Amino acid sequence: MDKDLSLDNLRKKIRSNEFTKTTSGYAPGYLQANLVILPALWAADFLLFCQKNPVACPLIDVTQPGERYLPSIGADIDLSTDVPEYHVFYEGNFETSVSDLKDLWQDDLVTFVLGCSFSFEEALIQSGLSIRNIDEGKNVSMYDTNIACQPAGKFNGSFVVSMRPFRAKDTIRAIQITTRFPKSHGAPVHFGDPSTIGISDIGKPNYGDAVHINSDEIPVFWACGVTPQNVIRQSRPPFCITHAPGKMLITDRLSSEFAVL
Amino acid sequence: MDKDLSLDNLRKKIRSNEFTKTTSGYAPGYLQANLVILPALWAADFLLFCQKNPVACPLIDVTQPGERYLPSIGADIDLSTDVPEYHVFYEGNFETSVSDLKDLWQDDLVTFVLGCSFSFEEALIQSGLSIRNIDEGKNVSMYDTNIACQPAGKFNGSFVVSMRPFRAKDTIRAIQITTRFPKSHGAPVHFGDPSTIGISDIGKPNYGDAVHINSDEIPVFWACGVTPQNVIRQSRPPFCITHAPGKMLITDRLSSEFAVL
Repeated sequence: MDKDLSLDNLRKKIRSNEFTKTTSGYAPGYLQANLVILPALWAADFLLFCQKNPVACPLIDVTQPGERYLPSIGADIDLSTDVPEYHVFYEGNFETSVSDLKDLWQDDLVTFVLGCSFSFEEALIQSGLSIRNIDEGKNVSMYDTNIACQPAGKFNGSFVVSMRPFRAKDTIRAIQITTRFPKSHGAPVHFGDPSTIGISDIGKPNYGDAVHINSDEIPVFWACGVTPQNVIRQSRPPFCITHAPGKMLITDRLSSEFAVL
Repeated sequence: MDKDLSLDNLRKKIRSNEFTKTTSGYAPGYLQANLVILPALWAADFLLFCQKNPVACPLIDVTQPGERYLPSIGADIDLSTDVPEYHVFYEGNFETSVSDLKDLWQDDLVTFVLGCSFSFEEALIQSGLSIRNIDEGKNVSMYDTNIACQPAGKFNGSFVVSMRPFRAKDTIRAIQITTRFPKSHGAPVHFGDPSTIGISDIGKPNYGDAVHINSDEIPVFWACGVTPQNVIRQSRPPFCITHAPGKMLITDRLSSEFAVL
């Protein structure tokens, strides 16, 4: 019903904590983003980490310390209130969920805005492909892998990937389409045998839900915006805030503005 | 040794029947092409066939009846002499090989110049990928398939595909690179399970040579310029001339001129 909400109205409901669900399928056409918020002392290293890992961490923009606004992605956006749910980590451990950062904001916090796969999913659907987890009403399947990130300063870890099954013909088309969206993780990093990238059981994702894979389909793996949260867990900054998975920051920018070619 | 021949010298040697080998690896950077030569009465149908099957039959240019020259692809090119070896078909049956068409030329012949996979192979190698059949010093593996062409007038048949094995990661890159070359068959039409496209034994190609496929590699299939010869065999025009497989027309145009994006 409320998927027809205008971007303005949706943002108001998120800001007033009236809307706390996943943003998947809302405000179609608008770029949705992952957030990572870190103290300034850790921010330079994370900026370098994003630079060295653009497929897992496609950086859209980053604030100055303490800034809660980022006009490049939305004139009206307040980064401390405009995400339906935030996750709070201390020393790399998840501590709690909050619906805004009014009580947690610090003047040294730097916010990283990272692209997410919702943009390319929209493009795949517009090209006539079906996204299995959407058809099954589930969250996308996500897996820890043995694909190492390039370390940077205090940050290190491995890729988390999302998986969508397709037939070979549709995989070829999906590779072409997602190549156009480098700020949404771009082309797949792998397809086929899950063990090649350290996944032992495709039926048991580490995050999200398992989906059905037909016998004529191949699992196709894209770098995933959950990678930074995995890296945070491993690198243990004293304090960190992220969006809750699936509950993204909706920007004023169109996904198509970020497509190349 | 003679792979260093300049384009001019190579063409002179081909024209004088001094050079009758495969053109693979010669005149790097220059577009090489498949030829189909048909009587004018059959040409309109074949033009329509190319239009309806651009992946298997990527048309570079076509002559008026009787013309042996095509300045769009080379100021100096004589289509009746500048291919190392021609194949002659009567009623769809292969009859003989000739090194030029001086004794066979007719005023009603229309020549179709079609892109070939040599262009994208060069681009794959330049991107650091290895082509197995080139490394093994063999002709590429080619297979009849159950992928139906779109029929047009008197012409009908199925796709012939060429196969090159790659690991998943390199397959993704190869899909990106070959997508840029629609006039060289473009992106693959299939990868993985050969039986999906009607190939019963990957170890027994219908044309060319078998190559080794490692356990971590996937067979990747592209539409192939042998498709028109298969279609000729099935559609039985009274008279037809093609190039001999692997012995192509070398044009004055650069492959990179035909790349999109």
